[in-house]
Amino acid sequence: MAKIGVMGAGSWGTALALLLDKNGHEVTVWSIDKAEVEMLASKREHESKLPGVKIPESIVFTNELAEGVEGKDVVVLAVPSPFTRSTARSMSPFVKEGQLLVNVAKGIEETTLMPLSDQIEEEIPQADVAVLSGPSHAEEVGRGLPTTVVVGAKKRATAEYLQKIFMNEVFRVYTSPDILGIELGGSLKNVIALAAGIADGLGYGDNTKAALITRGIAEISRLGVKMGGKIESFTGLTGIGDLIVTCASVHSRNRKAGFLIGQGKTMQEAMDEVKMVVEGVYSAKAAKKLAAKYDVYMPIVDEVNKVLFEDKKAEDAVKELMLRDGRIEHPDLPWTE
Amino acid sequence: MAKIGVMGAGSWGTALALLLDKNGHEVTVWSIDKAEVEMLASKREHESKLPGVKIPESIVFTNELAEGVEGKDVVVLAVPSPFTRSTARSMSPFVKEGQLLVNVAKGIEETTLMPLSDQIEEEIPQADVAVLSGPSHAEEVGRGLPTTVVVGAKKRATAEYLQKIFMNEVFRVYTSPDILGIELGGSLKNVIALAAGIADGLGYGDNTKAALITRGIAEISRLGVKMGGKIESFTGLTGIGDLIVTCASVHSRNRKAGFLIGQGKTMQEAMDEVKMVVEGVYSAKAAKKLAAKYDVYMPIVDEVNKVLFEDKKAEDAVKELMLRDGRIEHPDLPWTE
Repeated sequence: MAKIGVMGAGSWGTALALLLDKNGHEVTVWSIDKAEVEMLASKREHESKLPGVKIPESIVFTNELAEGVEGKDVVVLAVPSPFTRSTARSMSPFVKEGQLLVNVAKGIEETTLMPLSDQIEEEIPQADVAVLSGPSHAEEVGRGLPTTVVVGAKKRATAEYLQKIFMNEVFRVYTSPDILGIELGGSLKNVIALAAGIADGLGYGDNTKAALITRGIAEISRLGVKMGGKIESFTGLTGIGDLIVTCASVHSRNRKAGFLIGQGKTMQEAMDEVKMVVEGVYSAKAAKKLAAKYDVYMPIVDEVNKVLFEDKKAEDAVKELMLRDGRIEHPDLPWTE
Repeated sequence: MAKIGVMGAGSWGTALALLLDKNGHEVTVWSIDKAEVEMLASKREHESKLPGVKIPESIVFTNELAEGVEGKDVVVLAVPSPFTRSTARSMSPFVKEGQLLVNVAKGIEETTLMPLSDQIEEEIPQADVAVLSGPSHAEEVGRGLPTTVVVGAKKRATAEYLQKIFMNEVFRVYTSPDILGIELGGSLKNVIALAAGIADGLGYGDNTKAALITRGIAEISRLGVKMGGKIESFTGLTGIGDLIVTCASVHSRNRKAGFLIGQGKTMQEAMDEVKMVVEGVYSAKAAKKLAAKYDVYMPIVDEVNKVLFEDKKAEDAVKELMLRDGRIEHPDLPWTE
């Protein structure tokens, strides 16, 4: 039994709070939004973000940061990526030396090109920061459908402690030491999901989408490994696994935003219609800068940026990706002749 | 302009014949089924396997093996895997020294554990055998939706010749020297597609399916690399790419058969309902034998075999895969502590 604070009451924060409560932990959920806290505390259901899933009375909701952090064995950070740094900064005064924080959001800061756990460590240097990621749509976790994720931590003992906290019969938790690779895969995949959504919106089929996913994880891996991530994370649950679920799922807001763009809407119209934060739009810019910084060829990231920020027609972008000259799939493999 | 024979008038053979005809080649399609040949020649549409797609008069259909093989620059082998060896044997007398054959079917022979191109080489030792594979549902290629594939050949010049033959503005062809890796990925993925279909049939979500796909390609890679295939093929279009399209697509007969089994039908009932050859059922047995022979841990292949051939309940099999003890995702990655 652990005391756990969950920062952020979006769909993922709420689904994880439900899971942790079911696992027998004492769960407090913080949200910056007073109306949301009142709605959750009284209605016991997140009507807009996790409709139909009952929230038991045992989960406490609060608007006070300190209440979500102080005295907690584990604090889960589940705020949207653009608010991670500011939330961490506000939390810092309440965080004790060595207190365990688990980031479950995904994103790269456009100005600093830092993944979220680095931002958190910069704002809360006294914390022990871990991550949890993988193919895990909140809506399905909320409904108790079988799901696998990976916990990344610096120390094996920390990873194994968190594994025990989160794991149950429908939520399988693997451990990994590769925090960087996990975070890069989780963030960059949103850019590819936008591309996959665009292809869907244009009316292309599964063949096109599978090609974008496969070539997408290849370019993410090229960048991620050059940055110090491990190839295993990109070929694993937090890389290709998360990318697959994001590109396939009707739940994904990144895929949906891409879909709307593929149908002819502007980026702003698409973001307005999806309502939730479309992290891929932020990550697209960051990914482009990272590709330049590390000198990595990332054609899908390039084209997505052109569609989002340079008014390139979606159809032309996808065609350009599909119709470049014939190439060798993996130029390093040797031919006998 | 090349003279091309296509052996087999199923959905894939027909779709490739259409593509090659559009690319300006002279195409002859052979089928063992006289009624099918007559139907195709007169109706100019494959009503059951590629409905709604018009077949131009320029494509010739024949029931005579010699007519599909003799004088052809390229012969495409598109018969279902259980008939590849016997078709190759019948073709052999008509195949010239060094004639170029391209296998586009997928499968491993249960008795010999040989992939198809090895079977073809055994039956037609005088042929130069290449392969074409990738995420390419015939139905979408037939409709001209953007698709990527890989041509594998021993000689780079052969691969590049075939690339030019097949490539057009909606069909992007990569080249590769790794024939074995391409064939293993294409065959073994059908077993994982059965598992993904079973999960779908049980009503599980995208999270479960993404986990099965990710862990599935991991076990295929373990085996494939040990057999001599290149890891790049398993992480590329012919590995994960083809697996994704097969597991996601409404067109996949392997996924569909799994779906029906997940809903409670027996293997035989599922195969009867799908009507076309469900290659994964054959490959599942072969994969299990290969796992034993090469001493590779393949839990998904194991469970699929138990469901197909040992009357294990589908639900118990998926649960067993999801609920094993917590593990380290990639045991080789080092921890700092």
